[in-house]
Amino acid sequence: MTLVSDETTTAVLSGAELAKDIRARVTATAAELTDAGTPPRLAVVVATDDESTAWYVRSIAKAAAKTGIRCDVVDLGADATPERIRGELTALSEEPSVHGIVLQTPLPGGACLEELAAAIAPEKDVDGANPVSLGRLSAGLPAFAPATAAAVLELLDHYEIPLSGRRAVVVGRSNVVGRPAAQLLLRRDATVTVCHRYTRDLAAHSRQAEVLVVAVGRIGLIGAEHISPGAVVIDVGTNPTEDGGLVGDVDERAVTGLAAGLTPVPGGVGPVTTALLLRHTVESAWRSTA
Amino acid sequence: MTLVSDETTTAVLSGAELAKDIRARVTATAAELTDAGTPPRLAVVVATDDESTAWYVRSIAKAAAKTGIRCDVVDLGADATPERIRGELTALSEEPSVHGIVLQTPLPGGACLEELAAAIAPEKDVDGANPVSLGRLSAGLPAFAPATAAAVLELLDHYEIPLSGRRAVVVGRSNVVGRPAAQLLLRRDATVTVCHRYTRDLAAHSRQAEVLVVAVGRIGLIGAEHISPGAVVIDVGTNPTEDGGLVGDVDERAVTGLAAGLTPVPGGVGPVTTALLLRHTVESAWRSTA
Repeated sequence: MTLVSDETTTAVLSGAELAKDIRARVTATAAELTDAGTPPRLAVVVATDDESTAWYVRSIAKAAAKTGIRCDVVDLGADATPERIRGELTALSEEPSVHGIVLQTPLPGGACLEELAAAIAPEKDVDGANPVSLGRLSAGLPAFAPATAAAVLELLDHYEIPLSGRRAVVVGRSNVVGRPAAQLLLRRDATVTVCHRYTRDLAAHSRQAEVLVVAVGRIGLIGAEHISPGAVVIDVGTNPTEDGGLVGDVDERAVTGLAAGLTPVPGGVGPVTTALLLRHTVESAWRSTA
Repeated sequence: MTLVSDETTTAVLSGAELAKDIRARVTATAAELTDAGTPPRLAVVVATDDESTAWYVRSIAKAAAKTGIRCDVVDLGADATPERIRGELTALSEEPSVHGIVLQTPLPGGACLEELAAAIAPEKDVDGANPVSLGRLSAGLPAFAPATAAAVLELLDHYEIPLSGRRAVVVGRSNVVGRPAAQLLLRRDATVTVCHRYTRDLAAHSRQAEVLVVAVGRIGLIGAEHISPGAVVIDVGTNPTEDGGLVGDVDERAVTGLAAGLTPVPGGVGPVTTALLLRHTVESAWRSTA
């Protein structure tokens, strides 16, 4: 797909079609693996009562079932201790029939995602939460990237957005999105700037972006003044609205007619993220048979 | 120290005094540790015939001896296989009397630093070469940073250069300097841009830097056109000259009178790097007694 930057048409960079393609390939691979005696299996460890998390985890389980991946939701309860969570992750890491392990956030108070995720075997770390995965990514070694960060790159590639030598700006520096997305963009030879809450004059930085990735979690953070004409904008934000909907960090109306392309929320990064979690799981299962 | 940016005075950000201070504290700690029955010990694994490497390793060993750290240079020869190197790193990782392990580059053809360094126990990885160290750094967890990247920050702190909210540009994206330096600057709340060989119009980026870190290895890479008045420039480059000297990546004459401060080469980042390698070793020894 070619993006035309005529300052009137902003392409909607939907993730729906891409996610469908990925799921179709995952389904085929999962069937092959199952036939060969290695049914792919994903475990999602949950330790929260949060309703929207429960909804999200159910949507992963449903998507997994549809593609032929067994998905166990291991609910440890909102009062699970870090020791209990670590013990579960270790047990799942040692269980040969499990190929992917996700530690779902939020975690109970006192539990640190990065510390606990170190107990996930790197080869099963399908959401790239173990610090060793981030380190291996940074070092250019094979590793699973966090699925959300991987989805950003998958979308850019799907819409054939060139990255080498181009100015990419990442707004947000979380360990699950901003930092790994910056690493992935750097590996693809973009010149990468990471902005965050302490950045002075965000607009001055973001206006330089040919590719802008926004992953903060604040409605209306990015408006027309933050974008240069022709920029490609990937909106990773998912903010619940009062009417039960979901909006991103980018003011869609404001940047339409200015950006060359913008991912919708919902229907942009989200479905691709879930599809990649499943792809990572069959990749892990595939490698386990080698 | 206050840096005055009057476009005539460029402060020389020497590393000599700072390195001396660090070594003095290391010496005191090493003596305490030795008295307490835990003499700190560093092992440097070498697998090359390269003369300048041999010179550098000897300088580490000499500095270690002066501070009361035992330093073993383990020379495996230029024909050492990756398996042999990995075996040695594993053995040293398991040896309780060794507190710091450095895998010296260059390595024999076919050997990958990042892959091999994964065999260095993270708690002994005093030069931050194991990908898990880089991952932990990125994730905000305790870990040893590569000594050179740590030296960049140590110098900036020594000369009281503020970082939070300021624009830092790192030129070079190696796993030993550029990437970890960018991570450390990001942890200190700078807005960080990483430039590299594919960056178009390097000067346009580097001129935006309030703090510019240059770690490429090319004489004269950074001239007057690359610097904005008042920028603080850390020159990590060490390039041998025909007359047996050493110069950095920054054209010192060109930026003098423009930059607010510049680290000299030699005598800037280099001595601080060696001192930090020793500090990391006593820190590791200290933790081993806990």
